[in-house]
Amino acid sequence: MELEQHIARPRGTAARGAQSPPPDLAAQLDDKSRTGADDVPTATVFCEGNFGQIDGKTANGLVRHSQAYRIVSVIDSVFDGRDSGEVLDETGNGIPVLANLAAAIACLGATPDTLIYGMAPSNGKLSPSDRAVVLDAIARGMNIVSGLHEYLGDDPEISAAARSFNVTIRDIRKPRASKDMRLFDGSVGAVKAIRIAVLGTDCAIGKRTTATVLAKALNAMGVKTVLVGTGQTGLMQGARYGVAMDAVPPQFCCGELERVILAASEGEDPEVILIEGQGALGHPAFCTSAFILRGSQPHGVILQHAPMRTRRCDFPNMLMPDPRSEIALIEAFADTKVIGVTINHEGMLKPQVAAAIRDYRRDLRLPVTDALLRPGTDLAEMVLSAYPQLRPAPVLVAQ
Amino acid sequence: MELEQHIARPRGTAARGAQSPPPDLAAQLDDKSRTGADDVPTATVFCEGNFGQIDGKTANGLVRHSQAYRIVSVIDSVFDGRDSGEVLDETGNGIPVLANLAAAIACLGATPDTLIYGMAPSNGKLSPSDRAVVLDAIARGMNIVSGLHEYLGDDPEISAAARSFNVTIRDIRKPRASKDMRLFDGSVGAVKAIRIAVLGTDCAIGKRTTATVLAKALNAMGVKTVLVGTGQTGLMQGARYGVAMDAVPPQFCCGELERVILAASEGEDPEVILIEGQGALGHPAFCTSAFILRGSQPHGVILQHAPMRTRRCDFPNMLMPDPRSEIALIEAFADTKVIGVTINHEGMLKPQVAAAIRDYRRDLRLPVTDALLRPGTDLAEMVLSAYPQLRPAPVLVAQ
Repeated sequence: MELEQHIARPRGTAARGAQSPPPDLAAQLDDKSRTGADDVPTATVFCEGNFGQIDGKTANGLVRHSQAYRIVSVIDSVFDGRDSGEVLDETGNGIPVLANLAAAIACLGATPDTLIYGMAPSNGKLSPSDRAVVLDAIARGMNIVSGLHEYLGDDPEISAAARSFNVTIRDIRKPRASKDMRLFDGSVGAVKAIRIAVLGTDCAIGKRTTATVLAKALNAMGVKTVLVGTGQTGLMQGARYGVAMDAVPPQFCCGELERVILAASEGEDPEVILIEGQGALGHPAFCTSAFILRGSQPHGVILQHAPMRTRRCDFPNMLMPDPRSEIALIEAFADTKVIGVTINHEGMLKPQVAAAIRDYRRDLRLPVTDALLRPGTDLAEMVLSAYPQLRPAPVLVAQ
Repeated sequence: MELEQHIARPRGTAARGAQSPPPDLAAQLDDKSRTGADDVPTATVFCEGNFGQIDGKTANGLVRHSQAYRIVSVIDSVFDGRDSGEVLDETGNGIPVLANLAAAIACLGATPDTLIYGMAPSNGKLSPSDRAVVLDAIARGMNIVSGLHEYLGDDPEISAAARSFNVTIRDIRKPRASKDMRLFDGSVGAVKAIRIAVLGTDCAIGKRTTATVLAKALNAMGVKTVLVGTGQTGLMQGARYGVAMDAVPPQFCCGELERVILAASEGEDPEVILIEGQGALGHPAFCTSAFILRGSQPHGVILQHAPMRTRRCDFPNMLMPDPRSEIALIEAFADTKVIGVTINHEGMLKPQVAAAIRDYRRDLRLPVTDALLRPGTDLAEMVLSAYPQLRPAPVLVAQ
C-alpha cells in the first residue's frame, strides 16, 4: 500500500483519545496497577426484538466496539443462541445473544455488573415490558445504563428500586445542569486541529461507525486523531470527549459542542478532530446537524449515504434525499465543504457497492468509499488528499 | 385607506387567540362572572440596569403588551421615577419605573402578586444580587415568574424559601417532561392556515414585536390570525399557543412546535398562523430558527433586520449579516420564500428609516416596512399581497 510508506510516527503514541472511557471510568482505566480489560465492568445489552435492526443501533454499536464496558451478551429472544457478530456482520465475535436476563446470567456464570438498555426508539421512551426487565435487573443488583430521553433516574419507581438495591443509574443523555452550560463564543475557530464532521443523509445510517473506522485508520497511520462523540452510543462506548447533543437545550448546543472540542484540543493536542454527526441537516424532524456545523465550524464534512434506502428511518412517509441535494444544503448552511461520501451498503450486494462507489465518484466529483467493506486506509486517504499537510513525511530509508 | 374597504367580517370575532393567557390562567380569565382585568394577577417586573436595553427585552415586551399579568411597575434604579412607556417608546403608559422592590410596594400601596424576572441575559443565569431580590420578594409573599434557563424551582435555596412562604415559582422555560413530548411527523403540512414565520437577522431584534403588531393588524382587518409564541417573553405575555423552544431537547423541537401549531389550528380555526422566530438562522451561536422552519413548514417568512446594528447582540466579535445573505440562507434551508422585510429602527432618525425602506425595496425587490413607525395595515398588506386569497371580500354597498 502506498500509504504505508508515509507512516513516520510510531503506532501507539496516538492511540489514546480516539475512543476512550467517560470521565468517571477514565481514572479507573488509567490506573496502571490494574490489569486492564478485566477491571472494566461487565455488561449485558438489552435489545429485545431489535438486535441488528435500526432501533437497536446502541446494541449494534456496543457489540462492535466498547471500551467503557466489557459486553458479555446481548438479550434478544429473536436470535437466542446465535453469535452477535454473526448476526450483525457475518463474523463471530464470541458475544452470545440470549433469550432473557436469566439466560444471560446462567451463560456468564455470574450476574453481569451492568444492564445497558441497548435500544434507541425514536420516541426515546421505555415500554411497560422493558420497564419490568429494568426492575428485574435492579433487583438482581445490576447497575443500569440508559440512553433514553426518559431519564430512568428521575422515574419514581425505578429510582426507588435503585436506592433499595444500592445500584446506580447512568442516564447517558441527561445533560449537565443548564446553569453550568456555556454559550458558543467562536473560540473553536482558534483550535489548530483540522476539524471534520461526519454527517449523513439520514438518522441511523452509520455516521458513528464511519467516524470510528476513520479515527482508527488515521491514528494507525500516525495522524493523531480524536473522535468527539455527540450521541448516546458513542458515550456508552467510552468516548472520552463528547456530549449527547440531542438532550442539550438548543441555546447551549453550539456552546457545549465547542466546549468538548476545546477540551479535546487541550487534552490531546490532535492533528485531526472528527465530530460525530446526528440526524441529517435536511431531515424534516431533526436538525441537530445544524448545531454540529455551527458549534464545530468544521473545515470539511464527510457525508454518509445509503443508496438503497428509499424512505427515512422511522419516517416511512418521508423520502430519502439525494446526496447531491444534501451536499448543496450543507455547503449553503455552513462555510465548509464536503470532502467525500461514504456508502452504507445496507441491502446491497458487493457488485452494487462497487457500482455505487464508481457512479457517485463520477457524478459528485468527490472521493467515495465504504468504511466497512473497503480498507480503512481508503477512508483515511479521503482526509489526506483534502488536507495534504496532514500527510506524514515519508520514512527515509538508509542507503 | 384602501384596505379598510375590504373589511368584510365584523371586528371582534377573531380577537381571541392572537395573544391570550397560558392554560393555567385561561380558565380564570374565561370565567364570565369575573370582572376581567382586576382579576389578572398584578406584577412588578424586575429589570435592574437593563430596562430599555436588549437584555431587558422581557421587561420591554411586558410593558408594551401583557394579558396574563397586570404590570404595575418596573424596577430599575437607572430610570427611577420615569414612566416606562416614555423611556421605551416616548409615549407614557402610566407604568412607573422605580428604584427597588420596597418602592414598588409603596407606590402600589400593596405588595404586587408577582415578581417577574424581566431580563434575558444571554447566559440565562441568575446573578448573586438578583438572587437576593428574588428571595426578598418570596419573603414578602410574592409569586415568582422567571424565563431564565436556570430553573428557580430547582434551586434548593429558592425552592425552600418558596415552600416556607407558600408562594409559587413559574419557570416559563421549563419544558414538559421529555416522556410527554412528541416527535415531528409532518402533520403540520395538512394544517389549512397560511403559516408565516417571523424570523430575523439577529437575536433581540424585534421579531416578537413585529409578529404581535401583524397579528393585531390582520385580526383587525377580519383575517383571523393566531400568533404562536416560541420564547419566554411571549409566553409570559399570555400567548395561548406556544412553547419555549430553546429549552426543549433538540430531538423534540420540531415535534413540539408542530404540536402547538396543530393545537392552534384545531382550537381557533384561523386563516393565518404566525410563528415567532428565535435567534437567526445564520447566527453562529444559536440556530433555533432551523427548528422553527422545519417544525412549522411555513409558506412564507418575514425577515426583521436592524440596518444600523453592525455587531451581533451580546456577541461583539461577530458581524451582522446582510439581509440578502440571510434571505438566501433561509430559502436554501427550507422550502419557503421570504415575502417581506421589516425594519428595526434602533439608532435611526425617521429620514434614515424612510431611506432604508426605499433602498431595501429596490435592492431586495420585496415589500419593506417598519412595524412600529408605519401603520399596521402596511405590514398586513405584505401578507395579503403574498397570499391574495386571504384578502377579505369587499363590502358591497347597496345602491
